[in-house]
Order: sequence, then C-alpha cells, then structure tokens
Amino acid sequence: MNEAAKTLDGWYCLHDFRTINWPAWKTLSSEERQQIVNEFVTMLEKWDVTEKAGNGSHAVYSVVGQKADIMFMLLRPTMEELNEIENAFNKTRFAEFTIPTYSYVSVVELSNYMAGDSDEDPYQNPHVRSRLYPELPKANHICFYPMDKRRDGDDNWYMLPMDSRREMMRSHGMIGRSYAGKVKQVITGSVGFDDWEWGVTLFADDILQFKKLVYEMRFDEVSARFGEFGSFYVGNILTEENLPSFFHI
Amino acid sequence: MNEAAKTLDGWYCLHDFRTINWPAWKTLSSEERQQIVNEFVTMLEKWDVTEKAGNGSHAVYSVVGQKADIMFMLLRPTMEELNEIENAFNKTRFAEFTIPTYSYVSVVELSNYMAGDSDEDPYQNPHVRSRLYPELPKANHICFYPMDKRRDGDDNWYMLPMDSRREMMRSHGMIGRSYAGKVKQVITGSVGFDDWEWGVTLFADDILQFKKLVYEMRFDEVSARFGEFGSFYVGNILTEENLPSFFHI
Amino acid sequence: MNEAAKTLDGWYCLHDFRTINWPAWKTLSSEERQQIVNEFVTMLEKWDVTEKAGNGSHAVYSVVGQKADIMFMLLRPTMEELNEIENAFNKTRFAEFTIPTYSYVSVVELSNYMAGDSDEDPYQNPHVRSRLYPELPKANHICFYPMDKRRDGDDNWYMLPMDSRREMMRSHGMIGRSYAGKVKQVITGSVGFDDWEWGVTLFADDILQFKKLVYEMRFDEVSARFGEFGSFYVGNILTEENLPSFFHI
Amino acid sequence: MNEAAKTLDGWYCLHDFRTINWPAWKTLSSEERQQIVNEFVTMLEKWDVTEKAGNGSHAVYSVVGQKADIMFMLLRPTMEELNEIENAFNKTRFAEFTIPTYSYVSVVELSNYMAGDSDEDPYQNPHVRSRLYPELPKANHICFYPMDKRRDGDDNWYMLPMDSRREMMRSHGMIGRSYAGKVKQVITGSVGFDDWEWGVTLFADDILQFKKLVYEMRFDEVSARFGEFGSFYVGNILTEENLPSFFHI
Amino acid sequence: MNEAAKTLDGWYCLHDFRTINWPAWKTLSSEERQQIVNEFVTMLEKWDVTEKAGNGSHAVYSVVGQKADIMFMLLRPTMEELNEIENAFNKTRFAEFTIPTYSYVSVVELSNYMAGDSDEDPYQNPHVRSRLYPELPKANHICFYPMDKRRDGDDNWYMLPMDSRREMMRSHGMIGRSYAGKVKQVITGSVGFDDWEWGVTLFADDILQFKKLVYEMRFDEVSARFGEFGSFYVGNILTEENLPSFFHI
Repeated sequence: MNEAAKTLDGWYCLHDFRTINWPAWKTLSSEERQQIVNEFVTMLEKWDVTEKAGNGSHAVYSVVGQKADIMFMLLRPTMEELNEIENAFNKTRFAEFTIPTYSYVSVVELSNYMAGDSDEDPYQNPHVRSRLYPELPKANHICFYPMDKRRDGDDNWYMLPMDSRREMMRSHGMIGRSYAGKVKQVITGSVGFDDWEWGVTLFADDILQFKKLVYEMRFDEVSARFGEFGSFYVGNILTEENLPSFFHI
Repeated sequence: MNEAAKTLDGWYCLHDFRTINWPAWKTLSSEERQQIVNEFVTMLEKWDVTEKAGNGSHAVYSVVGQKADIMFMLLRPTMEELNEIENAFNKTRFAEFTIPTYSYVSVVELSNYMAGDSDEDPYQNPHVRSRLYPELPKANHICFYPMDKRRDGDDNWYMLPMDSRREMMRSHGMIGRSYAGKVKQVITGSVGFDDWEWGVTLFADDILQFKKLVYEMRFDEVSARFGEFGSFYVGNILTEENLPSFFHI
Repeated sequence: MNEAAKTLDGWYCLHDFRTINWPAWKTLSSEERQQIVNEFVTMLEKWDVTEKAGNGSHAVYSVVGQKADIMFMLLRPTMEELNEIENAFNKTRFAEFTIPTYSYVSVVELSNYMAGDSDEDPYQNPHVRSRLYPELPKANHICFYPMDKRRDGDDNWYMLPMDSRREMMRSHGMIGRSYAGKVKQVITGSVGFDDWEWGVTLFADDILQFKKLVYEMRFDEVSARFGEFGSFYVGNILTEENLPSFFHI
Repeated sequence: MNEAAKTLDGWYCLHDFRTINWPAWKTLSSEERQQIVNEFVTMLEKWDVTEKAGNGSHAVYSVVGQKADIMFMLLRPTMEELNEIENAFNKTRFAEFTIPTYSYVSVVELSNYMAGDSDEDPYQNPHVRSRLYPELPKANHICFYPMDKRRDGDDNWYMLPMDSRREMMRSHGMIGRSYAGKVKQVITGSVGFDDWEWGVTLFADDILQFKKLVYEMRFDEVSARFGEFGSFYVGNILTEENLPSFFHI
Repeated sequence: MNEAAKTLDGWYCLHDFRTINWPAWKTLSSEERQQIVNEFVTMLEKWDVTEKAGNGSHAVYSVVGQKADIMFMLLRPTMEELNEIENAFNKTRFAEFTIPTYSYVSVVELSNYMAGDSDEDPYQNPHVRSRLYPELPKANHICFYPMDKRRDGDDNWYMLPMDSRREMMRSHGMIGRSYAGKVKQVITGSVGFDDWEWGVTLFADDILQFKKLVYEMRFDEVSARFGEFGSFYVGNILTEENLPSFFHI
C-alpha cells in the first residue's frame, strides 16, 4: 500500500454561509431591527471573549454575489462547540431572517509533506501551534473554496509515490510563500467530515491577490493535473463599524 | 462472466437526515414544545424497547453544518418496519418542524472477500450474527457517507478478477482493523435499494479518528483507484441528557 | 452505420412518485381525510376495472426513504390515456396533499437481441403479448431505476457490432432467468421519451432479491462496462387492506 | 484552424415549459377559471393571426410526466418579439397558476454539411425558406430535447476535418429522411444563446416514431460517439377542442 | 513549474440575474408600481452619474427565457462598491419583487498572451486603460457565459508550454477581431472569485452575431479541445424608453 500523508490537526472549523431575507427584514420596525442586531452583536462579543482567551477564533464577512449575504468562519477546540454555536445561532432572532446556503465542516490541518526530520513533538512547537490554533486575521477580504486531489486515470494523486507528492507540494508551497505578507492561508482538512478533501480560506487586504495567487498556482502541476475545485466565495469584512450600515434599511 | 462477490445480509437500514425549522419551533409556547418533545421521547423509548428485545437498533445524532440538524439511523428485520417507522415519525408533531434533507436505504452487509472456507452456516455463527444484527454503539460521534466502486476505463472494479479484488479488500480491511477500539464501522449494502452501492457508518468517541481512517484508506489502491464517494455527514450524539438543551429555546 | 437493435413495443408506461404533505394532511378533520381517501380509492377502483378488462395495468406502492412516500406505475395503450390519468389525478383532492418528486415516461419494450429467426408476427404470439401488455404482479415489493448504455471512449455500447451486443445480452439474460420465480422484471424503453434510455421495474415478494439480482448483474460485462444507472426507488405494496393505516393520523 | 460549419438561420425560437398549480387553480370559481381560459385563448388567437400572416408560428402541447404540464414553442422573426410574448404571457392571469420549469432559446438552423455548390442565395430559395420559417405542424405529439456534439479525448467532433463531419452528417440525415412522412424535425441552433448547442423538436402523429427514430440514430456514429443529450420532453397536442377538458375541474 | 500567464486587471465586475415575481407585482396598485419603478429609475440615474464621471459602468438587460427576467452588469473600482450596490439594491422595494437566479463575480482582465515586449507601464497606456475600465456599450443585445480552460488527461491547458498557449490564443483572437464592429467582447477573470475561470460578456446590435462568433470559435483548437462552458444568458436592452412597458401591467 502507498504511503499515506500524515497530518497535524488543530481547531475544528465551521464555515457557515447565509443569505438574508431582506423583504422580511424590512417589514420590521427599526426598533425591532435594532434589538435583533443587538442580540447578534452580543453573540459576536461572546465570540470575541473566547478568541481573546485563546480558545478559538472567528471571522465575519459580507459575501459578494448571490451565493450568500453573510458568512461566519468559526474555529473551536471541539466539534461539539461548533455544533452548539451553530444551534445557538439558529435560535437567535437574526437567524429567522437568514436562509442557509452552504456550510463546510473541517479541522485546521498541517501536512507532513514539508516537515523536516525531528524527534520534537510538533504539537509543542510554538510556530506549529500558532498555525494549528490560529487567530484569524482581520483582513479586508476573505476567499473560501473547497478542493480535492484528483483520482482520474493517469492523474491519480493517491497512487503517486510519496516522493513525487512531496516534491510537487514543495513547489506548490513556494508559490504560496511568495505571497507572504499579501495573503494569509488557512488550510482545513475535511476528509471524513465534508464533501471535499480540503477547505482553503485566504485572507488579504488587497482582494486582487486572491486571483493572482490562485491563477499562478493553477499552472503548477499539483493544481494543473491534480486539483479539483468547488465553489469560490469572496467577501468583505464586517466590522463593528460597518455592521450598522449593513443592516440599516 | 466475472465471479460476483457474495454477501451476507442482516437488518435493513434507514438513515434519515432532517433540518429543523427553528423559526416555526420558536413560535410555539414552551408548553407546546414540551409536549412535542415528550411525544418524540416516547417514540425513542419505544425504539429502546425494540433494541433491548434484540429486534433492531437505532442511533440519534445532531449533525454539524447545514446539511441537517438531526439524523436517525434505524435497523430493523424488515423493510416494512422501516417504512412504518418513517411514516409514524412523519405523523408526529415534531415532524411538522423538520424538513427532510437526505435519506439512505440499505441492509447490513458482510462480503465474502475475507471469508475463509467453511461448511458452517455463517448465519448461525454468533460472531457473524453480532455483525449482521448489531447493537449500534452509543459513541460520541457518527460519520455517514455513501460510496461506489468505480467502473471507468481501466479503473473498473467489476471487471477485475475475484483474486485481485480479494487481495485489495484484504489490504483495505487491515487499515480498518488498525483502528479497532477507536472506530466502529457498519457497512450497509444498497445495490438495488438506493443511489450508491454502499453506505458506510462510522462511530467513534474521538471525531478526529474519522478523518485519520478515511484519509489513510484513500491512499490504499481500493479507494485511490476504485472509490467514488458521496456526501459526508458528521454528528454528535443526542442523549436523553442533552436532548432538552438541543430543543430548548 | 452500425446495425441498430430492433424492439417490440407494448403499453405506454408512467411512473409517478410523490411525497405526502403530512403536516397539511393532519390539519384536516378525520371526516375530510376519509372523503379524500374515498375519492382516491374510487380512482383506484376505476383503474382496477381497466385492468380487469385487459386495457392496462397499474401498481401502487409506498416508497421507503425520503425520495417519495407513494408511487404509481401505470400501463395504458396510448400516451394520451396516461396523460389523462395524470391530469385527472392532479385534479383530485388527494393530489393537493402530494408533492411530485419524480416521474418516468416510457413504453414496455422487448428487444430482438434474444429473438430467434421466425416469420411469425411477434405481436400475434401470446407469450410475447403477455410480456408487452403485462398485468403487473401484486408483489410485496417494487424496485425502479432508469439506466443507459454507456458511450464513453472504449466503452461505447452503440459502437459495438451487433454480435458482441447480442452475446453480452444473452449472458445478461441468463442471470435474470436464474431469478425466475423470485423477481419479475418489466423493461420499458424511454429513448426519445425521457432522460434515460430504459426504465427497469422489478417486483419481488422478498426485497433482498432486488439487491442480489442487481449486484450479481453488476459483475457481468454488459453492466460492469456499459451500465449507467440513475436513482433507485424501493417500496412496499399498498393494498386495500393497508391503505387505511397508511393514511390514518 | 479547423473549418467551421456554416449555418443558415431563420426564425428565433422559444420553448417554454410550465407546470400548473392545480391546487390553486381549483380554489377559483368556475366563472373565474372561464375568464382566465378566455384570456388565454385570446392570446392563442393572436398567435394564430401572426401565424396566418406568415410572421411566425407556434405549438401548444400538454406534457406527459412531472417535468411540465404545458409547453409552448414559439417562432418569431426577432428575439425581441419572443421576449415580449414571454413577458406578456407572464402578465396574464393564467401565468399566475403556472410554475416555470424549463425554457430553451434558439434559432431555426440549417447547416451547410449537406448543401451542394451553388451561387444561388439560399435565403431566396423557397424550399430553404420553408424550412427556415416553418409553419409548425399540428401533429398529435411533440418531442423536444437539447443536444451537444461531444468534445472529449478522441471523441472530439470539433477537431474532426470537415470531410469526416460531412460524411457522418450525411449518413445521419439518411436515417432522418427514412422517417419522412412519419416524423417532422425542426433543428434550432443555440450556440451562444442557451446551454446546449442545438434543440431538436420532433412532431409525429404516432408517438412511437420518436423512440424508433432516436434509437436508430443512436447506433449511428455521429450520435454514438459524438452525441450528448439533455432532458427529453414529450407531449400531446392541446387543441381548441381539448383545451376546455384540460382546464376543467 | 510551468510559466503562468500574466494579467492586467481593471474594474471589478458583478453580473446579477433575477426573475420577477409577476403575480406579486400585479397585486400592487398602479400607483405603488409607479413609485417602485421611480425608486428603481433613481438608482439607475445614480449609476449613470458614476458612469459619466468615469468611475464605473453598467448595463441593464431583459433576459430571454426562464433563467431570468432582468440582469445587471456592474463595473466598479472596488469589490466593496459592488457589494454596496448589491446590498442597496436588495433593500429597494423593487428587489422584493425579484428572485435571485444567478450572479457572477469577476474583474475585467487582459492577458499577456498577445502583448508585445515593451518597457512601458501598460496601466498608463490609454488604449489598455479603455479596455480595463470600459464604458459598456448600449448595444441592443447582451450575451453572458462563464468558462474554464480544460484540465483533463491529454487536454490540459495548464500543462501546455507558454508558446503553445500563446499561439492558440493568437489564432483565437483573430476570430474575435474578424467580428470587430459587430460584437464587442469584455473578458472578466474570476479565478479565486467565482466558480469558473472567466466570464465572457458580448454586446451586439444583431443578436445572431453571438451565435456566429461562438460557433466559429468552437472549431478553433483553444475552444474545441480546451473550452468548458457554463450557462449562456442572452438579453435585450432595457432603456429608459422601454422600461415603462416592461413593468406595465
């Protein structure tokens, strides 16, 4: 049997995309809307407390186009916590004005393709820990897409020897590193959890860098021959400052 | 004609996934909600009686992400009983607050790929019986996905000679066995019953073991070249203890 | 040009699958429900009269899983009659409580692959007639699925010479015949009528025989290399006896 | 670059498929229903006037199965006229009781594969004109399906030299001509207009001829290797005579 | 690693397609409808001001067939502006009567395949600027479709050497140029932004030119072997003059 890649796994992750039922939202009085926004902001503040305590992280973005109006990305130590947050949100008043359009269940993942030889326990390495349990950046923009490695005739990633995979991933990683400072990437693994093998979440202040990075990578053999991609979602950050105008009628 | 695999078949199986219409649920008074939950719990208790009598088994889990909020896995000696349970559930008050999102119809299956030669009637073998008519574990987590064996150009499982299939299944089974004590696997066959050829249901107390098992298997030839996978569903157990908070508004 | 298969064509066929809107059904008084069931039963009795007169046949089954709650299979001499029955049903009160989920339009078909040489008019042969204009059995279970013959690279059924196709169909037919007495099969052709090339409807008193038959056939070259399958539907018979409990709240 | 096929293009074409909301239709008084049918018939009579003036043509059929209840096929000299008719229909009272299920936008097309060499302007040729600007037959039955020519590995129609394509199309056309008098075929091109490359609309008094024609063609190389087919719709003609019973409750 | 194509990127682009809920629209009084149309026209006039100031551009078309009734194409310097316009539209009264059916997020793109060698900053070149920041033509017709370059076995665009890609794109561009004066083409890149790699928007006064252009290109190797196409949308321009009749009941 072929040598399997090994992974390090960090916080569990839920991406949750929803459209807003604007016609229903508009039927509310501005007082009711304010109450609902207040309840929503209180929930976000609770998430902030968790983030500050180092027990998780989250991101809230407005989504461009009809696929969604708003998205959450949530990181927590257990799948139970993600499920509780999801259910708690579904019981808020704001949730009554949202329609679920997509979600993704995964776990922050680092692969061993680029790891050196070491006796060290990687889960004790501070650099590794900062990547397994990351505080999500408050970047202007987010990009999310799920992906698979292809298994099709001669283009079957999982039948390749470990050395070929490692070499291709190294070349792939070099493109990613050339975007250091421009794009922050969080890879989450979803084999056994959701319909694709990985989720890729990118953060950038300049949204054009998403296109440049993904397009450049597409010419790299690991994407060109072996990448299968799902839907792409891009969004703009929702901050305490622009939330009121987002919800304002 | 190619030698077909033989199967042993046990209890019939229904997986039933539903989202909950939380906005409608919230419009109820807490008394009404309590009545509905009571009716639901009474149904679960009836299922428990069947399970204790050895006439079936069931599992009830909360599902992470938007694919569903709650899922049932039901095992019964006949397809008629599954259909009756499904129709009975549909007539409960709780069902009015659920929206069906996916279901799967199958039968617990053991294949002969790993069977030894024996004159014994396997249906009388207690070990075999415990696998054909299993009591589903009350594990913390569940994972369900349907799958096919590929029939595509040179990667056609059903055109392979029996010996090649048997050898690959043996290697595959060894990965499964290395997870003994961590992951319990129930294979149900659905050729002729539903859209994929098999359903795979995994149970584990540590949800990460689902990912480790499925990812390791993906590098094995039987999955790498021949596995086609449907949607993955993961969930957390709903027990008598946490049901009230699940339904609480 | 390649030699086309010839077919004999019998009664036109409509498969009609529907879910039941149970929450709406429950809002009715039991008197109203009884009136609606009576109207439905009157329609079924009209169908019985047609069947007894040899002018068609029908089957009514409850479907397991969420794909449907109830299905009709209707055979009639003309497509106009099927369309009239469909429209008449849509105007019944019961139809108001159903949601269409799938349908299939086809015609009972026998192919010439296994025909011998003869000068006889097959449409006058009583054995052939009983298969082109069959009375559907009142078996405990039904299984329906649509299928295509593959046209993909080297696996292109329609580019094979007639002799290869005939030989493979003969081997395929032998599997079917080994299930004589256990499974009754009605093949309907739908090229030019619906989205797949054939519909396969199986009837059996032991539902496990569907799985055994379809799985065994999958190892046969004609299925292994050339079969493409749509969704599978399985159900339990709805008789005069169990209709009341099916509709009872 | 490969030699492109040339086309002659006639009237623009809209196929419009809709289900009828029977439960809502039944809530109307018979007077209201009559008024709505009258408005609908007035629209059809306006279409008749256009047809008689040679400025377009149309067909109205009832569709078998759940894909639709009613379909329109409309031919007009401009796309603006089709859009106006569509919008006008959407503003009728009848439209309130219909649910759009599929549509197709195309233009009547003749290809040059079978054209001889000539200096003549084909748009002045009466035979050509009768095919580019056809009066649709009032046949008992209609069949519609969209299709593509395959571009897949070695089966890439658009990479074939013109001579091979012409020869295959000629063989294909011969099958079509053998159905002369039984099936009338209208080919509409939709490259750049809709999701498939062509729409095929067949008319016949004997519905079985659709199946015979399409099945025979499937063994022809141009279909066997290069045909990709969308959904098939079949229907029965709705005439002034049977419209009242179609709408009657 | 293979040499990646470089791009120049201009204004961000949102295509937004919606059907109109005509039954609900008709329930309004003509005064209410007029108010809503006035609010809508005011929004369009605001867009006109932006266009005249050279800070963006837009197009509004009626769509033929059921895929949509109305579409907007919007160009703006930032993705935030597009998101704001989208959210602002969703809060208008007219939006209550529309149902989103499709959207596309991209950025105006020029590729370097046809660029000559030059030290010049292309973003300062007036000709380049007019293509990156175009004023959309007020043509009679629009055509939109998304597309990918294929990555499948031997037909893998991203594995081709730069020279082959450049040569094929040149031949492809020559077809486009032969339609100069008849069809105006705006290419927008969507790698990392939406589900396909590019959006293609065509404008023409003669709608038949869309079909001629796209069909001729399909025989060109770059489309024949490497083009994968999504849904096609075609429409007729909505001007100040024909808006009233479009909305009139």
